[in-house]
Amino acid sequence: MTGGARPVPLHRIQVDDPFWNPVIELVRREVLPYQYEALHDRIDGAEKSYCIDNFIKAGRVVQALQNGKSVPTYPVDKWCYDDGNAAPEAFHGWVFQDSDAYKWLEAAAYSLISRPDSALAAKADGLIDLICAAQLPNGYLDTLYIINDRGAVFTNLRDFHELYCFGHLAEAAVAYYEATGKTKLLAAARRFADLICDTFGEADGKKRGYGGHELAELALVRLFEATGEQRYLDTARFLIRERGTKPYYFDRERGKETEADNYFYHQAHTPPVHQHEAVGHAVRGVYLYSGMADVARLCHDSALAAACQDIWENIETKKLYITGGIGATVHGEAFSFDYDLPNDLAYCETCASVGLIFFAQRMARLSLNARYGAVAERALYNTVLAGMGEDGKHFFYVNPLEVLPQASAEDERKRHVKPVRQPWFSCACCPPNLARLIGSVGAYAFAESADTVLLHQYIGATVQTENGVITVDSDYCRSGRVTVTVRGKQAFTLAARLPEWCDSVQASQPYTVQNGYMLFAVNGETVITLDFPVQPKLVRCSNRVRENVGKAAVTCGPFVYCAEAADNGDGLQRLVLSKNGALRRDGDRVLADGWREQADDKLYIEYKEPARTPTTVTLIPYYRWGNRGENEMQVYLRI
Amino acid sequence: MTGGARPVPLHRIQVDDPFWNPVIELVRREVLPYQYEALHDRIDGAEKSYCIDNFIKAGRVVQALQNGKSVPTYPVDKWCYDDGNAAPEAFHGWVFQDSDAYKWLEAAAYSLISRPDSALAAKADGLIDLICAAQLPNGYLDTLYIINDRGAVFTNLRDFHELYCFGHLAEAAVAYYEATGKTKLLAAARRFADLICDTFGEADGKKRGYGGHELAELALVRLFEATGEQRYLDTARFLIRERGTKPYYFDRERGKETEADNYFYHQAHTPPVHQHEAVGHAVRGVYLYSGMADVARLCHDSALAAACQDIWENIETKKLYITGGIGATVHGEAFSFDYDLPNDLAYCETCASVGLIFFAQRMARLSLNARYGAVAERALYNTVLAGMGEDGKHFFYVNPLEVLPQASAEDERKRHVKPVRQPWFSCACCPPNLARLIGSVGAYAFAESADTVLLHQYIGATVQTENGVITVDSDYCRSGRVTVTVRGKQAFTLAARLPEWCDSVQASQPYTVQNGYMLFAVNGETVITLDFPVQPKLVRCSNRVRENVGKAAVTCGPFVYCAEAADNGDGLQRLVLSKNGALRRDGDRVLADGWREQADDKLYIEYKEPARTPTTVTLIPYYRWGNRGENEMQVYLRI
Repeated sequence: MTGGARPVPLHRIQVDDPFWNPVIELVRREVLPYQYEALHDRIDGAEKSYCIDNFIKAGRVVQALQNGKSVPTYPVDKWCYDDGNAAPEAFHGWVFQDSDAYKWLEAAAYSLISRPDSALAAKADGLIDLICAAQLPNGYLDTLYIINDRGAVFTNLRDFHELYCFGHLAEAAVAYYEATGKTKLLAAARRFADLICDTFGEADGKKRGYGGHELAELALVRLFEATGEQRYLDTARFLIRERGTKPYYFDRERGKETEADNYFYHQAHTPPVHQHEAVGHAVRGVYLYSGMADVARLCHDSALAAACQDIWENIETKKLYITGGIGATVHGEAFSFDYDLPNDLAYCETCASVGLIFFAQRMARLSLNARYGAVAERALYNTVLAGMGEDGKHFFYVNPLEVLPQASAEDERKRHVKPVRQPWFSCACCPPNLARLIGSVGAYAFAESADTVLLHQYIGATVQTENGVITVDSDYCRSGRVTVTVRGKQAFTLAARLPEWCDSVQASQPYTVQNGYMLFAVNGETVITLDFPVQPKLVRCSNRVRENVGKAAVTCGPFVYCAEAADNGDGLQRLVLSKNGALRRDGDRVLADGWREQADDKLYIEYKEPARTPTTVTLIPYYRWGNRGENEMQVYLRI
Repeated sequence: MTGGARPVPLHRIQVDDPFWNPVIELVRREVLPYQYEALHDRIDGAEKSYCIDNFIKAGRVVQALQNGKSVPTYPVDKWCYDDGNAAPEAFHGWVFQDSDAYKWLEAAAYSLISRPDSALAAKADGLIDLICAAQLPNGYLDTLYIINDRGAVFTNLRDFHELYCFGHLAEAAVAYYEATGKTKLLAAARRFADLICDTFGEADGKKRGYGGHELAELALVRLFEATGEQRYLDTARFLIRERGTKPYYFDRERGKETEADNYFYHQAHTPPVHQHEAVGHAVRGVYLYSGMADVARLCHDSALAAACQDIWENIETKKLYITGGIGATVHGEAFSFDYDLPNDLAYCETCASVGLIFFAQRMARLSLNARYGAVAERALYNTVLAGMGEDGKHFFYVNPLEVLPQASAEDERKRHVKPVRQPWFSCACCPPNLARLIGSVGAYAFAESADTVLLHQYIGATVQTENGVITVDSDYCRSGRVTVTVRGKQAFTLAARLPEWCDSVQASQPYTVQNGYMLFAVNGETVITLDFPVQPKLVRCSNRVRENVGKAAVTCGPFVYCAEAADNGDGLQRLVLSKNGALRRDGDRVLADGWREQADDKLYIEYKEPARTPTTVTLIPYYRWGNRGENEMQVYLRI
């Protein structure tokens, strides 16, 4: 039992969970239709996407080229063309705009797996037709270059996201194939993948480049695993091996050379095998690290696996918010230095936590340990869920741990911190990323190998494994009771992750513990009842983190809690939790004994403790904050 | 006794003070010579000033024009020409670079008043010759436009600092005249002032403009007070009245119009008489507010005085750091919103605290109250002095209350926060501003009216007042004993400010208290001994300030203290002061009972109080921090 367990394919998982059902249903009923409209620029008041519009334009270009007509060229020299200055027929929106369509398709695919929906399937098929019509005969498929300048493809790998968009295309294609058996998008993705394999590599005449925004690495692996085509894995490995070698490709493609280490932002400062710390843009980072873990596993590359371990260790022990957020600074949407985890300036992009779950899943395959599932749980139940509003139509890109609406409005330093979720935004990476993760959440919960079935997350479901049918009846989020009914074909091991927050599990069957998993020997029909006592707890952060000394957070089960002004009045910094006071559950709220300090009138006062009165502090799950209008919020409170 | 007391002229004050003597001597011996070299670009490794170089170039232009030669024109379209792209003969450096020469001259003037120095006088006279040679025949004197484009003067009042540079010229001219009786620079300043009075005003054909960086207002008043020329006061009043009226002049000069309120950065969003909150660029703000207070006093403008009061109240009670720093954000070097006083992100420009002392001095003239002297003391003994290193050759522009060198090095958000003082920088407003304030510190300590002599600050000196000679023998900073010997010509009132930090003064003579001043009736020869018990104290900040809840600072007399890693080891956030423990003076250090928490290894821990061991926390005066190399520093510590 040292890793190697693959995720159970989604079509063999039927989720049925009191907590997750409404979330998944919200994605199906609200998020997917809303995002479909957003991609078509049909949401009043939302920033324009131009996504579908670009595919239509690119399709016209492809048609015109086939008809031998001349096609104009437009400059490809800005990150964003959505400034009203682009020619009407030129590409509009962000350079990575295609990816939103792919992410939507991937999410739609997952939804179709769990619940057939002919209207949704028709929308998806129509979109796939549009996408495929935009592909050049050689397989190239990125609307920015197809519309604007066919001759300039792959000339600015650092800034323009062709390999990144390809990655999302490939992920969507595999998902849609697995959902529907339809091969049209998969074929298109393979043709683009083949072009990429022909273009990039070590052989003479090939480009020794790699993408500025990683994703192609893990996507090529996914395509390899779906098709068995070895060159996809080889190219993924090439992209990782080549990255960060000197002289830098990103320099060479712009005809210059730097001596000093550079490109930390892109994790391209040094080859990944020599990387031991999470640096740079957080989303790019976890996408790369996921691809590294995949390649390390499939290629038995122990040096690369060691780098993955070091990076994981760095994130988990020095760069991870209690909410599972990563990326402490808005500058470069990036990891900051060790233990720099400010609450009110946090970036914690929703996509970064989505990517962290990808990384965790792959690390658990590389070398099983409960730490990966624990971090994935933290990210999933807190930052990822917080990214979406209760209506499915408003989203957080940034997930701070402390918000003062006046600061968001008036302080440039906190301009990125929004006190309420926003409707669709032009750089809309997060909403569809959320949708695809939630739609495939079962794949992060259940894994299997020849003789083991793993429960990484306690999500209620019926799972058809090679070893038999596992039915998980989960009340993990509320009472902590999980009943696992096994109808096994043979004797095997059921490995159930011990939650990090739980120190006294009750199990109805004997078990041993290995790497943080309870191992149950099961055979035939077996029922195992697990009771994880869900009780609110005070948790504190390492005192190496400057912002959180003298403070504590409240957790309950997998959820981190927070205080909002809507429940507690303004001035949350004047609340103090009692170290020894009671914490009581009240529905999904937690009530805590504490005090409220009287507000001082003078700015400077000879020291005496502020007058305070006993109060009950009301806390709600972090993922639900910001659903009641603008107000103050704090995860950490004084103690 | 309701204000009106004017500062005692500097030439009637002979400072002799155990604390201030070495500071003033450092300015004379190190700062002035160093800055003179810096203005001449003769400091190895320092950023270039180009200041003197520009005056030389402008002098050549004036000469050429007088000789009827044609002179080339260069674009005036950037803030800074110091980018290697300017033509060699064009203006170089920041647009306000002339002001550094004026500030140096003003500081030199004060030094000459207190201590004749023929070498320094010769340098100053030489510089004045250079400056006057650069003046156009019509009185205009700003090297940017003289060198680059004579036809474009006064066309971009918002961004280019002609009126600001004029202000420093006028201040220097008055100071140099008062120091030496020499009129050459004063005549030049008057000629430029006359041109400004002819150019700006309400009359038809005049420009209804005002400067983007205020200073001309208070400088015109100073010129009025030195010369009695009424139009200087009238123009100062005009600049203040016109400011912020709509349609905005700053819009009109660039041919556009905005409806919404704008120009908060320049305090030009609304007319000053309607301003009630300190907003925008902090240095510009306090310079404007000083001019407003001057004009309110001289023109008996009660509405303007009320605005000054409101703005003062806002700063003192909601926007003032314990160190006397103002300007909480790097964005616009500006005031932030009420109670937003972050320690580690603070801007607290040295110049802003210098300007706050100007404002305090003028408010005390408008309406006497000890609060003004108290804030000036805070700024003077803490942020202003911190601006200068012990060697007189290194300076802080930004004065944070908490520093982690790693954050300064790696965190973009704290790029402005330097962990050690810098040598001369190109935008070198602060060092010469410091020098001129320290050189004239007596003017902020002593004031007089017909029947009263005021001691705003307890600086040892012999002061020739209209009422008699006052000798102050001050050990205010160390023992708190101040002996005032009066040799009066008649009966008058000696008004001595009660320090804010002192709650039990011992005085050798009876007194009454009014507006925070002890009033002593004196006549003939009188000796008054004042004992202000200088004891270290714990002070806390209002719990409306989010960053400082659960923390305290240590003060001792006028000084705020701080902890440095050099004395306490790294991880200052893990130090906790005892609420009831002893605070002991040890030389100029303070030793405090407290604890050191053991550093946690895990990032998240079920709550228990961290293990800690008793320790003695060593604190040093804030103004002395950063003199022992890069290290952590904190003013506020946990308690």
